[in-house]
Amino acid sequence: MSRRFLDRMAILAALGFLALACGQGREQGQGALAPQTSGQGSAVAELMKARGLSEADVTAALKTYLPTGKKDDYYIFSSGGQSGQVIVIGIPSMRILKYIAVFTPESWQGFGFGDKASEGLFEEGRRRGFDMRWGDTHHPNLSETDGDYDGQFLFIGDKANARLAVINLTDFITTQVVANPLLESDHGAAFVTPNTEYVIESSQYPVPLGGAFAPLEEYNEKYRGAATFWKFDRAAGRIVPEQSFAIELPPYMQDLSDAGKLVSDGWAFINSFNTERSIGGNMEGRPPLESGASQNDMDYLHVVNWKKAEELFKAGKTRQIAGFPVIPLEVATAEGVLAFVPEPKSPHGCDVTPDGRFIVIGGKLDTHATVFSFEKIKALMEAKDYVGTDPYGVPILDFQKSIHGQVELGLGPLHTVYDDAGNAYTSLFVESKIAKWSLTDMKLVEKLPVHYNIGHIAAAHGDTVKPHGKWVVAMNKWAIDRFADVGPLLPQNFQLVDVSGPSMQLVYDLPIPLGEPHYTQIVAADRIKAIDHYTPVGFDAVKRVKDEFAVAGGEERIERRDDGVHVYMTQVRSHFTPDTIRVKQGETVHLHITNVEQAKDATHGFGISSYNISLSIEPGEHNNVTFKADRAGVFPFYCLEFCSALHLEMAGYLVVEPAEAKTAGSPRERGDRG
Amino acid sequence: MSRRFLDRMAILAALGFLALACGQGREQGQGALAPQTSGQGSAVAELMKARGLSEADVTAALKTYLPTGKKDDYYIFSSGGQSGQVIVIGIPSMRILKYIAVFTPESWQGFGFGDKASEGLFEEGRRRGFDMRWGDTHHPNLSETDGDYDGQFLFIGDKANARLAVINLTDFITTQVVANPLLESDHGAAFVTPNTEYVIESSQYPVPLGGAFAPLEEYNEKYRGAATFWKFDRAAGRIVPEQSFAIELPPYMQDLSDAGKLVSDGWAFINSFNTERSIGGNMEGRPPLESGASQNDMDYLHVVNWKKAEELFKAGKTRQIAGFPVIPLEVATAEGVLAFVPEPKSPHGCDVTPDGRFIVIGGKLDTHATVFSFEKIKALMEAKDYVGTDPYGVPILDFQKSIHGQVELGLGPLHTVYDDAGNAYTSLFVESKIAKWSLTDMKLVEKLPVHYNIGHIAAAHGDTVKPHGKWVVAMNKWAIDRFADVGPLLPQNFQLVDVSGPSMQLVYDLPIPLGEPHYTQIVAADRIKAIDHYTPVGFDAVKRVKDEFAVAGGEERIERRDDGVHVYMTQVRSHFTPDTIRVKQGETVHLHITNVEQAKDATHGFGISSYNISLSIEPGEHNNVTFKADRAGVFPFYCLEFCSALHLEMAGYLVVEPAEAKTAGSPRERGDRG
Repeated sequence: MSRRFLDRMAILAALGFLALACGQGREQGQGALAPQTSGQGSAVAELMKARGLSEADVTAALKTYLPTGKKDDYYIFSSGGQSGQVIVIGIPSMRILKYIAVFTPESWQGFGFGDKASEGLFEEGRRRGFDMRWGDTHHPNLSETDGDYDGQFLFIGDKANARLAVINLTDFITTQVVANPLLESDHGAAFVTPNTEYVIESSQYPVPLGGAFAPLEEYNEKYRGAATFWKFDRAAGRIVPEQSFAIELPPYMQDLSDAGKLVSDGWAFINSFNTERSIGGNMEGRPPLESGASQNDMDYLHVVNWKKAEELFKAGKTRQIAGFPVIPLEVATAEGVLAFVPEPKSPHGCDVTPDGRFIVIGGKLDTHATVFSFEKIKALMEAKDYVGTDPYGVPILDFQKSIHGQVELGLGPLHTVYDDAGNAYTSLFVESKIAKWSLTDMKLVEKLPVHYNIGHIAAAHGDTVKPHGKWVVAMNKWAIDRFADVGPLLPQNFQLVDVSGPSMQLVYDLPIPLGEPHYTQIVAADRIKAIDHYTPVGFDAVKRVKDEFAVAGGEERIERRDDGVHVYMTQVRSHFTPDTIRVKQGETVHLHITNVEQAKDATHGFGISSYNISLSIEPGEHNNVTFKADRAGVFPFYCLEFCSALHLEMAGYLVVEPAEAKTAGSPRERGDRG
Repeated sequence: MSRRFLDRMAILAALGFLALACGQGREQGQGALAPQTSGQGSAVAELMKARGLSEADVTAALKTYLPTGKKDDYYIFSSGGQSGQVIVIGIPSMRILKYIAVFTPESWQGFGFGDKASEGLFEEGRRRGFDMRWGDTHHPNLSETDGDYDGQFLFIGDKANARLAVINLTDFITTQVVANPLLESDHGAAFVTPNTEYVIESSQYPVPLGGAFAPLEEYNEKYRGAATFWKFDRAAGRIVPEQSFAIELPPYMQDLSDAGKLVSDGWAFINSFNTERSIGGNMEGRPPLESGASQNDMDYLHVVNWKKAEELFKAGKTRQIAGFPVIPLEVATAEGVLAFVPEPKSPHGCDVTPDGRFIVIGGKLDTHATVFSFEKIKALMEAKDYVGTDPYGVPILDFQKSIHGQVELGLGPLHTVYDDAGNAYTSLFVESKIAKWSLTDMKLVEKLPVHYNIGHIAAAHGDTVKPHGKWVVAMNKWAIDRFADVGPLLPQNFQLVDVSGPSMQLVYDLPIPLGEPHYTQIVAADRIKAIDHYTPVGFDAVKRVKDEFAVAGGEERIERRDDGVHVYMTQVRSHFTPDTIRVKQGETVHLHITNVEQAKDATHGFGISSYNISLSIEPGEHNNVTFKADRAGVFPFYCLEFCSALHLEMAGYLVVEPAEAKTAGSPRERGDRG
């Protein structure tokens, strides 16, 4: 018999003893380690046996289980990919706490259904004059102060439509969307500078900048990438497009970005692939992008001096493209704003170390993590010690002179995060493992299998100046056999890893039930200062002021004006005032709805049949919605969020009298109370 | 010192001993019960101490934890409320496995973005000619064979817009939406008959049936409810509207439904509130609904003989309203199809017992569960032993003669589910408790506090003829302080309760991160036979046949026809064929995309910038999407679902040449390969 089996027997025996020792003190429903159904054996031992749990499973369970009412220590803020959302998850329980609607309408939150609030965001986020009803969220970034998360805001990019959103973390709602006028797609977004001066959004697939047309045959000449630096006004909680600028980049496919910190503050780093400038064309006699873009051994790490670029922007050394100021490539090059360093191979991670001294790059088709030295790069740039230029005149530094070293990790290293003890954790996509390695010793420490095809990796404050060294999350792209079957479209798999001990322990598998996350950040729960109601009552959550149409109890009224019927309504458990709305077919109806509650969790909804309106109005919040009453008939409206024992009775009627019929009913029907 | 504290000390001491006993056999990352950071104490004891876990917490953790790769034993199928979705959750892990898009567009699943598949559902689901872009899902019901779940289909109602959807449980996608032409809102939907002959959808807020107009003043005369019986064709997997019918009901607010089973098969039961016929009007001198509808001590349990109603329908004893056959109230009454039994007070649960003999009703403003006897009700109806009729001529049975008995449970009893040992579990909304009581003894057994304001309750197969007696889920409406803060809009709280032992144990709190669930059903995992890819390749998941536009590898082509440019495209890791699409501004583009993969999890997406298109194409699936290329320029498209190390390179370009420009490029550009 193996040593391990004997150990297990000892454990079971000890647990049995334990159960006998405490069996007498059992109260109903409490003595959980005591036998539950018989006088023999303990509940724990029985459960281990019955459920086939190993000792490691038991510690994993006890490290992650949160009893009722206990709260998580960390928040994970994750992108939702093409769901267009942000996913909020708790650590250690790995319970999903909220999906935040960002780019895609979502009716539970009423996001995309009101006109003054969320509907406005879709107008801001229009592209070429058209509403976009989805987004592909990739990289969330928390606002930072001195290089660490301050818990105030979250930024996230839409890869599909080159947009950026701002989420306020007091109420977890999207308050701004900006569309990039230069690009069609982004990938290096959103990444903030250490004091959130700027939010970086860099391109993915090159296009003629600013929505221009040029045939693919003019790709090299007319297609470009760009690094956009969106100015953030923290006090206003808004991106200020008028104070934002971009830097033109060659038509490589820029990938991920990261801002320098501490010694490298003022700089940004962007990696790239397809320096081959393949354009695909597999039915036009050219190779597909996957092979065309995989020819070179090296692509280019883009080194950007954004502080200098900011000076150039302020000095007006920009060209306007689609109304947006762009520092041209020749200016960026001449002024020392941009340089390239070769990076191996098919790079896909770009992660500045906590001390700001190094940039770690993983290559999808490489086996190493390459550690670039900011000090060396800066010195080479200052000395103008170049090995040449690319076809666009961008100076290229010598690879060997730029690096601190390389560490062999395994197949398909992608992204790297850090702990508080000088270690780095790199995802190995092809190997499906996490590699822990020492930045100090430049040596591999340990590998942990994950399931399967890990993409990004995240750690608690793991990309800040002060990593916490506690938890690592593997964001696995394929789940395959991990979860109960749910049809051909499977969840992704987040695996939680405890890195606080001497060796890594996989402790939890979380299926992602909606969306395909790409990156997450993990922030200590005490950094988040969330509110549970709005004051003053009548608050517009997007404008962050009391809405001009808000009313208090007693001020409710229905007014007919030139622009239609204005209904000033309040909600309180469990009725609407007014609860009867009578209009004529064809009239425009302006609903102004204030939830006058101030109690936690006292949300009310507003839904109405056949008119496609779904609002969620939180305690103290105000929403407006405008629609044309073009359908005659009787339409019940009701509270969508269960609010009290009489919630089902929180309802009313919109009565739309047909245009051709004569008026029916009492004189009171159309009267104002106000 | 308390006995309990001493017991706890004994446990810790024993665990310490245990750790020493097995400390020697530890292998790296395996000996989890052994000390992790020092030579003293065990990991379990340390974890209990460090994390403040009680003995009950430890058993709860071990009852619910699923190690990596282990699968859940049960699926919960839950409504998502106003998110318009269905939520799939695993037991015991309580991990959310999937959000299924039903009534609301959802871009990760590409639901609502293609024209042949999901977009078509929105056309089916139109109301009064208008697209509805959300729904309020309330009551999911699994298809049944002989009164037990067969795992084939799931039905769910949209309260907001009176619609019903069919979800296929081989691939977990919505394949049909029907809009009720009579109603504006439903609540008693979806509830199936024991062999899924019909899916019941009954009304909530009365309106003039069929979209007619009548002023509120004619509420009593012209407003009505209805119980709709949608015929289901199991072989086709579709509701057949032409074989469906409805029964007119008085303008009370019908609430929940349930179909009889075994002895009561052929019957259905619907409860109601607002037999006062209050219409609200709090700014027109009338009381709001919440008080107007709470005057009567009794409302009416609706007893429906649907087998008889089916005969009447087949005999043509119906009136057509909005093209739909309706059995008029006077016919239903005269033919013995409908009778009322008084039910106390403000009833909100209507749950037939596993043996089909009783119907349990909970009243929001009552303290009892009232157990109605089907046998007695049937005998009274056969004997025409009535105490009178309601204003619409519906016969009313005597309350005392109709009931089996009442059991005092506590404040606000709502819904009831059952186990395999003769027990019932009733949610107590006002008390925030689960009441376990014996149907056999008609006595309260035990109460368990839940957090907070429990609405529905569910049990494993707990509303079928064969309950499993294992798990109960409390669906709590308010979470309040249970979870880490996420702003004013809070998650709901599902609490898992182990009912397999002599007393109930609360073992898990699950926040619902998106949507507000109302009801769930819990089915054994082995009943679900999910597929992981489609065959034949080119499968249309809505039509359930190979799509006429599907192509195999080698058949890809671009064809210009009278109706526009047809692009026959395939997807395989990691390229599109073709990957270049060149059109002129204004042309209509028909994309026909086949994912030719057959491997599990090999999903590909299709997203394109600025054109609002997001598709998810599962292995073997085919999607079509049509759009007008009215925006000139260059638009990258790419795979939305991470599919391989070269996923980012799975991209191409849509080049839309401006209408005014001359043609550029080579002759090959527009050629067909086919």
